[in-house]
Amino acid sequence: MRINGQNFHTIWADKNDPKKIKIIDQQKLPFEFCIKTLQTFDDAFNAIKEMIVRGAPLIGVTAAYGMYLGLLNFKNEKPLADFLEEICDRMKSARPTAVNLAFAVDTMFATLEKTDNIEQMIPLALDKANEIKQLEIENCNSIGEHGVTLIEEIAARKPGQQVNILTHCNAGWLACIDWGTALAPVYKAHQKGIPVHVWVDETRPRNQGSKLTAFELKQENIPHTVIPDNTGGHLMQHGMVDLVLVGSDRTTRTGDVCNKIGTYLKALAASDNGIPFYVALPTSSIDFSISDGLTEIPIEERNGDEVRFMEGKSGKIQVVPEGSPVANYGFDVTPARLVSGLITEKGICEPSVAEIEKLLKSE
Amino acid sequence: MRINGQNFHTIWADKNDPKKIKIIDQQKLPFEFCIKTLQTFDDAFNAIKEMIVRGAPLIGVTAAYGMYLGLLNFKNEKPLADFLEEICDRMKSARPTAVNLAFAVDTMFATLEKTDNIEQMIPLALDKANEIKQLEIENCNSIGEHGVTLIEEIAARKPGQQVNILTHCNAGWLACIDWGTALAPVYKAHQKGIPVHVWVDETRPRNQGSKLTAFELKQENIPHTVIPDNTGGHLMQHGMVDLVLVGSDRTTRTGDVCNKIGTYLKALAASDNGIPFYVALPTSSIDFSISDGLTEIPIEERNGDEVRFMEGKSGKIQVVPEGSPVANYGFDVTPARLVSGLITEKGICEPSVAEIEKLLKSE
Repeated sequence: MRINGQNFHTIWADKNDPKKIKIIDQQKLPFEFCIKTLQTFDDAFNAIKEMIVRGAPLIGVTAAYGMYLGLLNFKNEKPLADFLEEICDRMKSARPTAVNLAFAVDTMFATLEKTDNIEQMIPLALDKANEIKQLEIENCNSIGEHGVTLIEEIAARKPGQQVNILTHCNAGWLACIDWGTALAPVYKAHQKGIPVHVWVDETRPRNQGSKLTAFELKQENIPHTVIPDNTGGHLMQHGMVDLVLVGSDRTTRTGDVCNKIGTYLKALAASDNGIPFYVALPTSSIDFSISDGLTEIPIEERNGDEVRFMEGKSGKIQVVPEGSPVANYGFDVTPARLVSGLITEKGICEPSVAEIEKLLKSE
Repeated sequence: MRINGQNFHTIWADKNDPKKIKIIDQQKLPFEFCIKTLQTFDDAFNAIKEMIVRGAPLIGVTAAYGMYLGLLNFKNEKPLADFLEEICDRMKSARPTAVNLAFAVDTMFATLEKTDNIEQMIPLALDKANEIKQLEIENCNSIGEHGVTLIEEIAARKPGQQVNILTHCNAGWLACIDWGTALAPVYKAHQKGIPVHVWVDETRPRNQGSKLTAFELKQENIPHTVIPDNTGGHLMQHGMVDLVLVGSDRTTRTGDVCNKIGTYLKALAASDNGIPFYVALPTSSIDFSISDGLTEIPIEERNGDEVRFMEGKSGKIQVVPEGSPVANYGFDVTPARLVSGLITEKGICEPSVAEIEKLLKSE
């Protein structure tokens, strides 16, 4: 999608020097647009850990390129097979919640373990990382195509009127490679000329909504309004929201959705007001090993300084008084009973074991 | 309650010069403790409008003193009765949602209209303002006495363990004169030696939670943790909240509660997890003219800069990119069906016409 009128992906191998992986520094957005170069495994690991890149699909692709960078720097100090296992394990530890990370690392491993020759392994790794990236783009495109039908249905019921969509956090193209998950249907609707308007949850403590979602919607000229996370319930009570669309970091085989902290509160409000609440995700983020999201998904606790300080245009400001403790849980789990449906690259389905399995077998 | 170990009220007439009304500047808290002097009607009006004082009970008392200050400066340019009506109307317009404001102004008017002599009216106004203030203190004290029984019941069920209470915004003594509404039971419990811990919702966009609630709890040495507004649902899902206690700016005769934006989302989460959700309020904030909170209570829309910028220790920082519109609704309405009970100075009751009426007649 576009930044300052030019098309970008969130990550790419430099055309002239594929030993350099380029990313958009998402910590600097929206107040500065800055491209960063990754040249080592640690560069990629830290970019994920420090959230210079974030969003489940983008984390996965960055991890894949990071493994390629790790192999580029392989020094023969230990057996290649040991080294490969080591970088797989380490990369998975960068962010514990996102299942895409483990998925991408495992996909890379399955390809790479077929050779024990570093000269063969390096181009294999670059090809596979490029392939994973391309697949994520296609998946998001398909999510958009499937999801836009929901917006078209709403638009058909209120001709000439704006369709109001509420989203939480950033599940746009900046969280992916292109298109996004939750925002892909919005971009598709906009391209089809459907008048959409997006309520953008600020998404404390890191403000991915006001900083990233608002930024990318503005770059694509999509009408939107930034709201405090407290506001969505009131809007839903007053008929000002037609549809809630969010992403997911991990979805269980039963349809429980682990996403940015606060998603559950919006799902409750949608349910209380009879508003459809859809979750957009690539099927690669479904964790088939988990049946109960609430008890089985580990919830990342992040540094309290994200709550204590607020980052803005001109730096950081302290917003919690000294001596007051803070807590900073990164995610929450929305039970399947509150989810109207899952929008995946394979189609839309109800959040249940049976329907998810049916969808996956439908190819 | 205490600030730096010394007892304070939020508003008082200067002992040596009762023409000076002193307030704590709540815009400067928690990073600066500063006492401000009101000497004119406009000083008081602006203190309410600019939220230098805030909280329904404190707004009412400030309005009462403001009318007294207005009379002190009466210039004989128009008939006294006209002047009195004029300042009543103007004062009511300072904040549209808080019903205490209108209640205090009407109480003042009922007393003052009995005389047409400015020399008699001035001391009458000061006496009545002092009386309203004293009544607010007694009401909060009684709310604390009634509300603490809920905490005692929970403590009895989990001996030796902390009772975890979640609150939204600031309904502590800083919102009142002393004790507070939602926090009064917490202070009473702490004084009785019950181990309480308070989850403090940050409360965007103005952060009254992290700035005021955290500050006053810390000054009274009450264990607490500041959390983003997105976090409460997750905590409730995991048994980390025993009780939700919030205040109210206006409560309908049917028990619908208008309070700081975001309260409704916490009520939904409490209901979904079987956690008691109580609202503490003086009965003066019940609006008997309103039956349906959702359609009949006007919701104040505040300046978008409160969302665009975040105020902290060292000034203000821009957190929303240029060109992205914002919306800033001040309050939402929690339907009575989500409210476990109302804690008032007269006792605790269910949120229904019949129970509220019964409680009010119970004296």
